[in-house]
Amino acid sequence: MSPPSKICDLPTPALLLNWPVAQRNIERAAAFVDGQAVRLRPHFKNHKCVPLAKHQLAAGGCCGMTSATVDEAVSLVAAGVEDVLIANQVVGTSRVEQLLDLCRRATVRVAVDSTANALPIGQAAVARGIEVGVLAEIDVGSHRCGTQAGAPTIDLVRQLTAIPGIRFDGLQAYHGNVVGMPLSAERDEEARQSMIPAIETRRSLESEGIVCPILSGAGTATYRVVGQMEGVDELQIGSYVTLDWSYKQRVGDEFDVALSVLATVLSARSDAYVLDVGVKAIAHEFGPPQIAHPPNSEVPRFSAEEHTIVHATQHGLKVGDRVHVTPSHACATCNLHHQIVVHEGDEVVDVWPISARGYGLDLT
Amino acid sequence: MSPPSKICDLPTPALLLNWPVAQRNIERAAAFVDGQAVRLRPHFKNHKCVPLAKHQLAAGGCCGMTSATVDEAVSLVAAGVEDVLIANQVVGTSRVEQLLDLCRRATVRVAVDSTANALPIGQAAVARGIEVGVLAEIDVGSHRCGTQAGAPTIDLVRQLTAIPGIRFDGLQAYHGNVVGMPLSAERDEEARQSMIPAIETRRSLESEGIVCPILSGAGTATYRVVGQMEGVDELQIGSYVTLDWSYKQRVGDEFDVALSVLATVLSARSDAYVLDVGVKAIAHEFGPPQIAHPPNSEVPRFSAEEHTIVHATQHGLKVGDRVHVTPSHACATCNLHHQIVVHEGDEVVDVWPISARGYGLDLT
Repeated sequence: MSPPSKICDLPTPALLLNWPVAQRNIERAAAFVDGQAVRLRPHFKNHKCVPLAKHQLAAGGCCGMTSATVDEAVSLVAAGVEDVLIANQVVGTSRVEQLLDLCRRATVRVAVDSTANALPIGQAAVARGIEVGVLAEIDVGSHRCGTQAGAPTIDLVRQLTAIPGIRFDGLQAYHGNVVGMPLSAERDEEARQSMIPAIETRRSLESEGIVCPILSGAGTATYRVVGQMEGVDELQIGSYVTLDWSYKQRVGDEFDVALSVLATVLSARSDAYVLDVGVKAIAHEFGPPQIAHPPNSEVPRFSAEEHTIVHATQHGLKVGDRVHVTPSHACATCNLHHQIVVHEGDEVVDVWPISARGYGLDLT
Repeated sequence: MSPPSKICDLPTPALLLNWPVAQRNIERAAAFVDGQAVRLRPHFKNHKCVPLAKHQLAAGGCCGMTSATVDEAVSLVAAGVEDVLIANQVVGTSRVEQLLDLCRRATVRVAVDSTANALPIGQAAVARGIEVGVLAEIDVGSHRCGTQAGAPTIDLVRQLTAIPGIRFDGLQAYHGNVVGMPLSAERDEEARQSMIPAIETRRSLESEGIVCPILSGAGTATYRVVGQMEGVDELQIGSYVTLDWSYKQRVGDEFDVALSVLATVLSARSDAYVLDVGVKAIAHEFGPPQIAHPPNSEVPRFSAEEHTIVHATQHGLKVGDRVHVTPSHACATCNLHHQIVVHEGDEVVDVWPISARGYGLDLT
């Protein structure tokens, strides 16, 4: 079946991308690196949608894509993307095998934070007669994966350079703690301070004669500051293209919300109405969804699978009316949908598959 | 590619169903209605997995399946399930057309709570020369969709019986507020009290000569109480088959947790380890996931897309080790995965597709 030509004819819930807004977001990020040495490495995890990734790459200023998982990298490489950084540890025999399949077909690098993590990759690479490029991940404040900057990372890198099948290609540093801070001069300063130890570690390695071609990091809230720091090569900017209401509060005028979920009013009473979207259509890590109309709308709780109750007086909505809902977390919301419907106003411009959504075995 | 024969060889995150536990859950629910007039109508929204639904039906005592969406009903009818109740309002031209396609192929009923909701269904049914069976939804405490018991519902039913293309088949009443209460005599009493107005509404309709063949409702936490009430025909029991840690606290010994997400340790330090699962693999409406080993494990926050940080001293885990993680919400977790891997101990018994996961257009 072909998709309808108007968004009002879509079955709901439907994930929508406002194309003029998304294009403007893409152009603004590309303009920032224009004429500079630093490059963008857009993060695929935001939308997992290949056609959208291709628009990001086509806008210029990119050195490749970032992915969070091997499955995401599989989608990108299958579509012809030639340079992918899996900004995460890859562990387990079947995941390592998947990684190596990709390394034969494209430049695919991966983050490591221990020899326990790197050795199986190296062994499998040697068995295939290839080499895998790795970035040593530094913990610059997220306290997730990664080694501490300075001596612990330098020790790890020395060991990595001795592992057959492993090629040390540089460092990764992501300050997840900073990108969550409100827009402020303090956040900019925190972002800068968090990256200094990573840059210093790079310099120490280089002074030892260990070549360190790449330092990759930052996010939508911090790429502008980090992109001006000498010694940073790649900006892993992700959410900027779709945005969400939570991130919008943290970026100010720079980018705008392009993503929404179209919903239908199932039931209406004088002080409330009920939409046909719930937690299976809208992710809520950073709060319940927001609804622009009417201005006094309030979502008192958001935990049902297929319903959103909106408290609003004088809402003027009736059964069958359509409402645009903005999620607090775009990345996890895109993961809930098979496609993203690209629109300009009321017109459906295109429908793009979200090919890397969900988890599971490839049993084809 | 064929799936591995051992769960330890699965790529992670992997959704697992402990088959002996799930079978026992299925048998216990079937045993409850054995020899009674009341029937089970298992809720497909829990797992959206057709082979699992077929096991539920095969265990006996069922009058059909419940679904939350038209898409779920499409999966069930395509697989040959002959009786489906969409326990929700269906609104919008394309959704109504989908519903009518199903009504030609199976007994598919739908909940309505207004003439605004029922009229378009009736009009479309008349245009096709068919009739759609509807249940009038009563709000028995969820304050979501539904009319109030008594006069408002009786008025609606009178109007429904006059709409061409609509066949009034009975009432639906779901106390979402009660199923969330802790296991207690108070909860049982609340469940009973909430259903009395629905049963009374049924009696009033029947005393007016309006035939009301079905009263359908209840959930895993309340089916036992409600199933003993005269005038209740169907029990929409869903979560019982997989369960999750949140629901386990609310059912006591009756059912056990059969669902887990298998995860891999990406990184380990003395006081913590990091797993390769996050909010894109594990739903968290009712709290962060739980980890049984070691007993002092704690998940301090759970909002990352691909990571869970587990605080635990003396965890003894190393990079590459596997850990079973239990979600707080099984229904939304199943929706994140393409398949469910059915296992008995370490053995993979089967791999079943979660065919109705996610939202989107059928563009095939």
